[in-house]
Amino acid sequence: MTTVHERARPAAEVLEWGRATVDPAMREAVGALPDPVRHIAGYHFGWWDATGQPSEPTGKALRPTLTLLACQAVGGDVEAAVPAAVAVELVHDFSLLHDDVMDGDRTRRHRPTAWTVFGTGPAILTGDVLLTLAVELVAAAGPHARILTSAVLDLLGGQNADTSFEQRDDVTLSECVAMAVGKTGALLRVSCTLGALAGGATPDQVARLGLFGEHLGLAFQHVDDLLGIWGDPAATGKPVHSDLLNRKKSLPVVAALTSGTPAGDELASFYFAQPEFDPARAAALVEQAGGRDWSRERAAQLLRQALDTLNVAAPDTTATGELTALARMAVDRTH
Amino acid sequence: MTTVHERARPAAEVLEWGRATVDPAMREAVGALPDPVRHIAGYHFGWWDATGQPSEPTGKALRPTLTLLACQAVGGDVEAAVPAAVAVELVHDFSLLHDDVMDGDRTRRHRPTAWTVFGTGPAILTGDVLLTLAVELVAAAGPHARILTSAVLDLLGGQNADTSFEQRDDVTLSECVAMAVGKTGALLRVSCTLGALAGGATPDQVARLGLFGEHLGLAFQHVDDLLGIWGDPAATGKPVHSDLLNRKKSLPVVAALTSGTPAGDELASFYFAQPEFDPARAAALVEQAGGRDWSRERAAQLLRQALDTLNVAAPDTTATGELTALARMAVDRTH
Repeated sequence: MTTVHERARPAAEVLEWGRATVDPAMREAVGALPDPVRHIAGYHFGWWDATGQPSEPTGKALRPTLTLLACQAVGGDVEAAVPAAVAVELVHDFSLLHDDVMDGDRTRRHRPTAWTVFGTGPAILTGDVLLTLAVELVAAAGPHARILTSAVLDLLGGQNADTSFEQRDDVTLSECVAMAVGKTGALLRVSCTLGALAGGATPDQVARLGLFGEHLGLAFQHVDDLLGIWGDPAATGKPVHSDLLNRKKSLPVVAALTSGTPAGDELASFYFAQPEFDPARAAALVEQAGGRDWSRERAAQLLRQALDTLNVAAPDTTATGELTALARMAVDRTH
Repeated sequence: MTTVHERARPAAEVLEWGRATVDPAMREAVGALPDPVRHIAGYHFGWWDATGQPSEPTGKALRPTLTLLACQAVGGDVEAAVPAAVAVELVHDFSLLHDDVMDGDRTRRHRPTAWTVFGTGPAILTGDVLLTLAVELVAAAGPHARILTSAVLDLLGGQNADTSFEQRDDVTLSECVAMAVGKTGALLRVSCTLGALAGGATPDQVARLGLFGEHLGLAFQHVDDLLGIWGDPAATGKPVHSDLLNRKKSLPVVAALTSGTPAGDELASFYFAQPEFDPARAAALVEQAGGRDWSRERAAQLLRQALDTLNVAAPDTTATGELTALARMAVDRTH
């Protein structure tokens, strides 16, 4: 008899399977959209380049794969989860399209962002269409539209808090954590929730798989924030210390700023005030103030909590083993 | 015994009642949003000015009033339609917030547009939140979320077509009508559909009241397009001939361009090509080519069709009389 971990495929293979499983439904849903929205969406997904020539799909397909696996973990047929899996990927893409406009980011996944290629208006409209289409797919598949819209409101609330933090020098650590739970945790939570519901989960399983997703999302954001300061530019595609150059109030930064340590106070003395500063010095101060260790420890702790919750919800299934592999990969990643 | 028309209140009074009826639910839904989204939304509605001082609400509240009356027309209790009425108004506001960003418009309802006051990013995010909240309200009230998302996709499809027309010199009249049905007809249609459903309408009543809304929407767009050329700047708040200055491919313009008349051909000879032209001459050519008369006649014909459909769906109710008054006002308006 093989164990769960022997049957489970490695994370990269699982993600490839997840993408291939949702791809036909994704192409069907998006292919029915009118141009230029269809063309812009496909460009954003990496289906083709700006001229329409076939290209390599971008993105990890983490969210739809979580949906499919959550469905399987509770004994459901994976096909039942495909509409929800497409929907969570579309919500993710909607938020990226709008984020790039809002932040003025010119590069995403090593390609020019959609708004730089097609203009701001068409990129906004394409995001609007993908969000609406996502809710439509979930509403057409069953009674769970409100679960998705509620998660989207949490996601937008997190983005709203993130933006409002830019104007403030008194962000507390709990505000920062709540922002990250909204910005990143809500969509990973609902990816798992909708997959579990599609698979016929019990209410207890739905709640636990949702919590697995939320914990994983927050761990993911801690890792993102660590990479935003100490990530290898060659791997992340971003400049060294990029989050510090942008004065982001990310989790390790706010932990440092609110640490009450001399290093934290020194960081605060110039982080809000000075038009220019040495980002290497700021990075050293975040580390001295304990921000780096805190985020590392929280990421590891959240991963453990996520896996504990997962194993109560759905012990000993192949999908559980694969969700475990995905969760470890999301926290151990270098880009 | 009084007749329907004796009991029916005049249009302006009905709109005031519509606004007052949805206002508490609207303030409850939007008041629960986090700042700055809440503040930006309230500014856009005219609830307060940029500094938070109370102000005069803007907008006609046409769509929510249609929802409430459609509910009453089929014998429903108006309270049942309030969530849907708030939702259609929120979708309308979402589309205005994003339109103003996409078109770069700096003035709306005689006030600076939200993006000029709060920035592009916050205005986009506020629109996203209002759209999501709208679907959430409908999903929470019953099984009709997909009816709303489907209408929003039609609306966005109409906006997408409108934008893509800018790059083209071969737009056909049927494409132009289809665009207007999406851009303006879809939301008026769903305003009536959701109201009828909330009121417990039969499927036949739902379909007919939806058609009433769609016909009214297209008539409304014809009138909008006529005002965009021949409207009184003092009443519309827009410069004279504004749609021609922007080379809009509006209904009367496309009717003229595709008329096969000498005047239409002359208009086509410079409308697409020349960087500057005399808008008064263009307006005269649209009129000579029959575009003005066509839009006037279509608006009148669509109004008759709308009222015929309404009277079959819900004959002899006070709400029918009030819907009639609203429809006449929407077509006879001068701004």
